[in-house]
Amino acid sequence: MGDLVIRRATAEDLPAIVGMLADDPVGAQRESPDDLTPYVAAFERIVADPNQHLVVAVRENQVVGTLQLTLVPGLSRQGATRSIIESVRIHADERGSGLGTQFIEWAVDESRRQGCQLVQLTSDASRTDAHRFYTRLGFEASHVGFKLQL
Amino acid sequence: MGDLVIRRATAEDLPAIVGMLADDPVGAQRESPDDLTPYVAAFERIVADPNQHLVVAVRENQVVGTLQLTLVPGLSRQGATRSIIESVRIHADERGSGLGTQFIEWAVDESRRQGCQLVQLTSDASRTDAHRFYTRLGFEASHVGFKLQL
Repeated sequence: MGDLVIRRATAEDLPAIVGMLADDPVGAQRESPDDLTPYVAAFERIVADPNQHLVVAVRENQVVGTLQLTLVPGLSRQGATRSIIESVRIHADERGSGLGTQFIEWAVDESRRQGCQLVQLTSDASRTDAHRFYTRLGFEASHVGFKLQL
Repeated sequence: MGDLVIRRATAEDLPAIVGMLADDPVGAQRESPDDLTPYVAAFERIVADPNQHLVVAVRENQVVGTLQLTLVPGLSRQGATRSIIESVRIHADERGSGLGTQFIEWAVDESRRQGCQLVQLTSDASRTDAHRFYTRLGFEASHVGFKLQL
């Protein structure tokens, strides 16, 4: 397999990113890959915020993964900045290739470079494979994640 | 009891906020209320970021609660912006007064006003009273929250 490049997402990557968001048992029902309009508007909000890092993993000119890293300055833990990893998706062709591990390790390293003292993420309770994966990478399942739809 | 005001935190509120962060079974070991230096630096990072809303609840000129609301633009869920509630603390004198409910309802309403489609938070697995509280307010404990200390 060719080398992996992890870089900032551009507007040209949106079809591939949205395709991966939709190709997912949890995400399938809530995405609209045939109408990119809401994603283009959201992309503009993301790039306007310096604390958002929307990235893609690219191999042989194909987008094969995406994640969003958010930096959150805060007061607790003696003024710690934390990062939040959100919307991690790996292309179906790449599952089992080790890309997930490389990708999360990149996000952890980037968080350290940005001065974060904590990395956090939530994973749907149904994604038990993902839970084992994050535990193997050193994450602790210490919290319960609550959501409220508006 | 006097009226409750919920407003943006100022630098003058820092001693009261840090006092509440430290007066907590989970937070006690990781805060330094006798040295505010790291909190002052963090406060400057928070106010410089328009997506951070650090607020206090004030009753009779006393700071009796604090929370941080973070807006996170994203691509998933058709370009939804979500809000994250973090570092919720209620002064010991106010527990059981209904302030927690008013405060979280304020954060949910503010998220709606800001155009969010989702509100989320994580709560330490040991805080079972808090879990019941969030469930009563309509939150769903649908996720597992993972953390990695750097």
